[in-house]
Amino acid sequence: VGASRFLRGLVSLIDARDLTIIVNTGDDECFFGLHVSPDVDTILYTLSGLISPTRGWGIADDSFACLQALGRFYDTTWFQLGDRDLATHIVRTDILHRGGTLSSATRTIASALGVKPIVLPMSNDRVRTFVDVEGRGPLPFQEYLVRRRGTGRVRAIQYRGIGNANPAPGVLRALRRADFIILPPSNPLVSIGPILSLKGIRNALRSRAARVVAVSPIVAGAPVKGPLHRMLRGLGHEVSPVGVARFYRGLVDVFVLDERDAAMAPRVAELGMRPLVTDTLMTDVTRSRRLAAVVLAELGQ
Amino acid sequence: VGASRFLRGLVSLIDARDLTIIVNTGDDECFFGLHVSPDVDTILYTLSGLISPTRGWGIADDSFACLQALGRFYDTTWFQLGDRDLATHIVRTDILHRGGTLSSATRTIASALGVKPIVLPMSNDRVRTFVDVEGRGPLPFQEYLVRRRGTGRVRAIQYRGIGNANPAPGVLRALRRADFIILPPSNPLVSIGPILSLKGIRNALRSRAARVVAVSPIVAGAPVKGPLHRMLRGLGHEVSPVGVARFYRGLVDVFVLDERDAAMAPRVAELGMRPLVTDTLMTDVTRSRRLAAVVLAELGQ
Repeated sequence: VGASRFLRGLVSLIDARDLTIIVNTGDDECFFGLHVSPDVDTILYTLSGLISPTRGWGIADDSFACLQALGRFYDTTWFQLGDRDLATHIVRTDILHRGGTLSSATRTIASALGVKPIVLPMSNDRVRTFVDVEGRGPLPFQEYLVRRRGTGRVRAIQYRGIGNANPAPGVLRALRRADFIILPPSNPLVSIGPILSLKGIRNALRSRAARVVAVSPIVAGAPVKGPLHRMLRGLGHEVSPVGVARFYRGLVDVFVLDERDAAMAPRVAELGMRPLVTDTLMTDVTRSRRLAAVVLAELGQ
Repeated sequence: VGASRFLRGLVSLIDARDLTIIVNTGDDECFFGLHVSPDVDTILYTLSGLISPTRGWGIADDSFACLQALGRFYDTTWFQLGDRDLATHIVRTDILHRGGTLSSATRTIASALGVKPIVLPMSNDRVRTFVDVEGRGPLPFQEYLVRRRGTGRVRAIQYRGIGNANPAPGVLRALRRADFIILPPSNPLVSIGPILSLKGIRNALRSRAARVVAVSPIVAGAPVKGPLHRMLRGLGHEVSPVGVARFYRGLVDVFVLDERDAAMAPRVAELGMRPLVTDTLMTDVTRSRRLAAVVLAELGQ
């Protein structure tokens, strides 16, 4: 959601066709035999204007008649899949069953929805993020986040399958050829972490010519959305922009932190990143655009 | 639809758990990668009370939000799949992809919907009914019936795959052990024909102990619903109860024809079947029950 809010501002400032978006697929889940890619869909729905502005995920004004009927056959109806949203999962699953990849499914869906940037799933191989919660054991990410509402003490996070997963076609090339790279204000552990852990990604980032900017998802000691604070705390990290910046050491040139956290700028600088202090809250499109403009200006764009 | 209307009467008169219903699957079609079994679903929705009484297929008061959204990705949205109806196709497809059969999928769905009779798909093997229409060539059945609205001159009907298809588990045993067998007022060419053409079915019917009753789907020179008259005419058959009865020669003991066609009773008798003349129109449940009662009385039930 943080990434999509940032993107809605960014695409209003640059030619969307110049933009390549690499999206986490570690949160993908199979419900009712349908392949759901929550992060990809949030990006696609945001960029196509279909997104529910109130929820920040799913399609605006969607209905839930099919999900309700699926409740007759399954007890896994805790993941809210709307009727219009289901069409996306149905076509993705259809393409995968016909031998297509997540890349080709994403391309087809993006094109049908009129999305202009290139949206790449991070990998066509199966990576599954598990959150190991005290007293519950490792939970698939959606079960942790949605079913359990992100509660419980986090002991570990696993990216299962990451060792055998390759970046999807176009991912490494996009990083190598980019004029600039932005790590949006997303969860560094479960949204950006899986991407950074894929074969070749860290190398591509270390050897890139482009400047890299990251935006802190933690503002004033708490995530704007989601259970990132519990994850950081559970794993022994500091719940602050500095705690996030540490994950990006050696990869990022500029680290954007909120003005409420201005006092931490020197500690970010100590990590070898230039701190950029600004208002990072994106409560509406105007503010998203303003933040994107600040980041672009820093990048000389 | 004729079969389901007859069944809604029949189940109100006998213990539904004593009933085994063998259903055509030659009309099954894949839409959006989902396995749709229209005949099975019409039976299941009728027996569970979910059926749309106005349409005679699909679920009452269903919405079409998902189908509309699927229209962004496919041009095959001419087959009206409602949001609640889609749940059935999603679970069926899920079961098939996990290695289940049409039998097991049907059992799961029937059980979840509270359907008491045993509903058996005629076969777990793929049989596809094609209608060869002049100037258009062979069309898959749903395309002929729904997309083309059953128009055009029918030159031939093919049951593709029928030679390699076996009756589903339980089908032959149900026929051999039945106290009585009813061929409801369905299309003899595309609804009952595929079942009769499966390996072993005609033999099971010829060697059965039970009496067999068939009900004419043609009343006063026209089918109650659907393009049966065009099919019969196109293939050179008489569009009358006699034209239908000829398909059942040697298989059926009693042939029920409508009182509007009473004059044809002697010609039915000439085919070696006892003609039973009654009001066969099932415009409401009371009339369905009345017709079922007449058939059961004839069978000594």
